[in-house]
Amino acid sequence: MAHIDLKNDLPGIRGLMAYSPDTEKPLNMLAEILLHSDDNTLSRGDREMIGAYVSSLNDCFFCQNVHGALAQHYFQCDMPFIDNIKRDPIAAQISDKLKALLAIAGSVQKGGKYVTPEQITQAKKVGATDKEIHDTVLIAAAFCMFNRYVDGLGTWAPQDRQIYVERAKIRAEEGYTNMNLQRVVPGELPEKG
Amino acid sequence: MAHIDLKNDLPGIRGLMAYSPDTEKPLNMLAEILLHSDDNTLSRGDREMIGAYVSSLNDCFFCQNVHGALAQHYFQCDMPFIDNIKRDPIAAQISDKLKALLAIAGSVQKGGKYVTPEQITQAKKVGATDKEIHDTVLIAAAFCMFNRYVDGLGTWAPQDRQIYVERAKIRAEEGYTNMNLQRVVPGELPEKG
Repeated sequence: MAHIDLKNDLPGIRGLMAYSPDTEKPLNMLAEILLHSDDNTLSRGDREMIGAYVSSLNDCFFCQNVHGALAQHYFQCDMPFIDNIKRDPIAAQISDKLKALLAIAGSVQKGGKYVTPEQITQAKKVGATDKEIHDTVLIAAAFCMFNRYVDGLGTWAPQDRQIYVERAKIRAEEGYTNMNLQRVVPGELPEKG
Repeated sequence: MAHIDLKNDLPGIRGLMAYSPDTEKPLNMLAEILLHSDDNTLSRGDREMIGAYVSSLNDCFFCQNVHGALAQHYFQCDMPFIDNIKRDPIAAQISDKLKALLAIAGSVQKGGKYVTPEQITQAKKVGATDKEIHDTVLIAAAFCMFNRYVDGLGTWAPQDRQIYVERAKIRAEEGYTNMNLQRVVPGELPEKG
């Protein structure tokens, strides 16, 4: 049960967004620009993967599954492939550029000052632009906010990971600013006692 | 020097916002609602203090001075008073409610799961509402983003704290969504070599 009375049964950040529509707007606008907008040279899959990776480092079950399932949707792979990237990005079958960006994201998760000039040099060496490095840092920083918002207020999360896979198809289509917070997929709401 | 070419000399998050106007909008909209909006039962001073406290825990020089100076402006105190709150909120001359909210914010800084039911119970006992607890968690989480954005891209910050005190008067008046990013106060830009 959440630490405060959210007056709804929605899971994770959706319960918080329904509770606080004023702050929902800029949060989803930020997510839309960073993760879903077409005006970006990083693929949607890469951007969602950065979010899922940071969420796993922050041990946020809800966010790492929402955004891991979105990365899985865009990459057209399965969830174990995503889990392998989260566990060991260096060993994973992904581009050198995404590896270098995940290394930067991992440092941001610890704190801004953990990003090293060597990580930036390496990212540029394998083709990352200034804008892509900027977006990687801001995506990683934003997930340090989203994860803390979701867990800091003690929200609940569906445990069946297939629910996240089903929902990812809807989210990929709608994006973040056309979200219907109330639309649920089967099994997503807590059972009434 | 920042890790990427920002194409401007502005300090801290202002340089990043001038570089990336698309993401500037939702970031400042969020700051406006959380920190400056009148539609809140927490005072502007209390809200800025939560941001300054989290920024000090994250060791972000720029943010803790920007928002510490704003708290000082609203509290009508001096900067050493703010420094004392950052160093030891429990011993500081502030309300029991602000002490309880800063304890929650300090846990959020470590990670969402560090917030305890006892901290929530204590905050409610000294008069905090659900909405105030919600806003405290989201302010603390948002500063975990802002701090990482500012330091993760290696931005520079003026070292003279009086500059932040001067700028706080402008920010208090303008708020965050009417910001003129280019307006500088004396001494704020780096000296040209």
